[in-house]
Amino acid sequence: MNQPDVAPCHAEYWNIPKLDNSALADIQHIIDHKTKPPGALGQLEELASTLANIQGLTTNDYTKIQINQPCILVFAADHGIATHPISIAPREVTAQMVHNFIAGGAAINCFCNSVDVALKVINAGVMTPLAINHNDYINQPSALGTEDFSVKAAMTSVQLEHALLNGQKVAQQQIEAGSNLLGFGEMGIGNTTTASTILSAISGLPAKQTTGKGTGISDEQLDTKIALIDKALLRLQQDYPSHTLSAGQILQEVGGFEIAQIVGAMLATASAGKTIIVDGFIVSIAALLACRIAPNARQFMLFAHCSAEQAHQTVLSELAAQPLLDLGLRLGEGTGAALAVPLIKAAAEFYNNMATFESAQVKVN
Amino acid sequence: MNQPDVAPCHAEYWNIPKLDNSALADIQHIIDHKTKPPGALGQLEELASTLANIQGLTTNDYTKIQINQPCILVFAADHGIATHPISIAPREVTAQMVHNFIAGGAAINCFCNSVDVALKVINAGVMTPLAINHNDYINQPSALGTEDFSVKAAMTSVQLEHALLNGQKVAQQQIEAGSNLLGFGEMGIGNTTTASTILSAISGLPAKQTTGKGTGISDEQLDTKIALIDKALLRLQQDYPSHTLSAGQILQEVGGFEIAQIVGAMLATASAGKTIIVDGFIVSIAALLACRIAPNARQFMLFAHCSAEQAHQTVLSELAAQPLLDLGLRLGEGTGAALAVPLIKAAAEFYNNMATFESAQVKVN
Repeated sequence: MNQPDVAPCHAEYWNIPKLDNSALADIQHIIDHKTKPPGALGQLEELASTLANIQGLTTNDYTKIQINQPCILVFAADHGIATHPISIAPREVTAQMVHNFIAGGAAINCFCNSVDVALKVINAGVMTPLAINHNDYINQPSALGTEDFSVKAAMTSVQLEHALLNGQKVAQQQIEAGSNLLGFGEMGIGNTTTASTILSAISGLPAKQTTGKGTGISDEQLDTKIALIDKALLRLQQDYPSHTLSAGQILQEVGGFEIAQIVGAMLATASAGKTIIVDGFIVSIAALLACRIAPNARQFMLFAHCSAEQAHQTVLSELAAQPLLDLGLRLGEGTGAALAVPLIKAAAEFYNNMATFESAQVKVN
Repeated sequence: MNQPDVAPCHAEYWNIPKLDNSALADIQHIIDHKTKPPGALGQLEELASTLANIQGLTTNDYTKIQINQPCILVFAADHGIATHPISIAPREVTAQMVHNFIAGGAAINCFCNSVDVALKVINAGVMTPLAINHNDYINQPSALGTEDFSVKAAMTSVQLEHALLNGQKVAQQQIEAGSNLLGFGEMGIGNTTTASTILSAISGLPAKQTTGKGTGISDEQLDTKIALIDKALLRLQQDYPSHTLSAGQILQEVGGFEIAQIVGAMLATASAGKTIIVDGFIVSIAALLACRIAPNARQFMLFAHCSAEQAHQTVLSELAAQPLLDLGLRLGEGTGAALAVPLIKAAAEFYNNMATFESAQVKVN
């Protein structure tokens, strides 16, 4: 389906279908005839409608929603910007946490176990080579970490293409193995700085409005973070004086490899007509970039939660997204995406199996 | 443990333990040493702390949280007030929905199936005798519906005692069968009117501030609803001119039987040191009454969601409760309580099984 002669940072490469939405009225009719007052299941009704509409595209059956082998893909990478003191933890923690994911000890492992969701961990660009041999580990670093984007481009165009295509490959593998619901997570010390810079570059908002305390930095670290982002934005203005940057240019200039691989994986998921679960701030930035590359991708996205990171709400608004959960999470790893899966399954279950007024002989008038 | 010579609308009858909270610092230490920044799991951290604190009381082990056989108890009853046009549906729908619950066709059935939670349906006072023979059905009506509380007391003192004691019995049965997590739901045409009246009687707020559109009534029906509540409040002022009504008096005067049985069941759950999941507006009113009868009951309550019913936030504030979900649900039946169970399980799972920095060899400093 993809056209290999077109670069993967252009919509044409992904060829994402446009939902024609002609079945939405029938879907709403199904929902409204369930034994409940109209609208009484709130956001779960919209969720069921979205799922049925997406799946009708690929199955020609809008009356049953299938949730097949949901999977969380956690992409990890290091960031050159994290050589500056902008995180609570040293860069080495990215690799240590990858080992923790593989050993089953991280929050995302616990949540995936708890909600019965598969987990794959992808090395998208950790700064040290990782000697891990495990069924759930995928080793495809685009490089050993990005460059420091406050002084130079985070990656080369060849690395960007590698990241997008390898993200695509991982998503396609999961879909070929039977999954139709892919959640995305990330790990990368310093990557809220990267995400905030991307948001400023896209939105034009000053660093102060796109930057928060990540997983819990000090006021001094926050000042450093903002100054570095301002420096990077100035560099971009000088290097690209005459036009707005494309999503591909922003990704190449700012990074990171986990974000770029997630963008590729999301676009591949949408291209296959499957459903995307967007996690927190950083994954939402990847979603925003994916939608800038190919706006049709938005139709295939569900938004798991609103994180405690202040700028996350800004990104969600840019995407016209209403998240399912608001639990004050600020961990990443796909934790919010995993926690949203039971709600998605519950929406499918009521849509598929709840009685109608007629079938249950409930007479409201 | 209960003292049968004391009436069940007094705290002494229930003898609910007071958590001494001395283990909370140790519990926080456990949570803070997991491989995540402090506080990064937001409300799930508070949830884990609450669960560990409750269960330490009964197990003397604060290091593992057990979630055993979670169960939703849906209590159904009819309301004399619903002879007035204050609901979208006729009173007969209460009984029809009980049949729907037993046939497995309602939203709560779908959600319980989806999240793997047991469901019991209790006839607490439906207006027609129900000939149902099913393992998950418990027939213990306190009467065939309440009286119209706009003109007289909803129930007699004997009926109130029956309701509280039979609610107690159902909860005790589930706990004896092995459940340590009981969620509560309700079905009763007209019962938002009952709940709003109770809230006004407790809080002193005028009917306009405690009354909403329930499952979706018209403006005219809303006016009728408010006028009936005002009439009832005036009756109570005239009948009890010199003092504030107790929770027991309010329950007897306003009803309903499902609310009273839920109050009894919640108090029995707290008395046994087990955990309560509070659902939407009506169940939260039952929780408020339970806490007025025995304030120690509050320690054992988790709050599933904030419903779309406008006064629900008022009740949650009265109870100093921060709900887990906010999905715009306005159905009742325990649907929000069921949807909260996966979050509760996820909190237990990370508390029990997530690695520490030491065990995972993650070095953040």
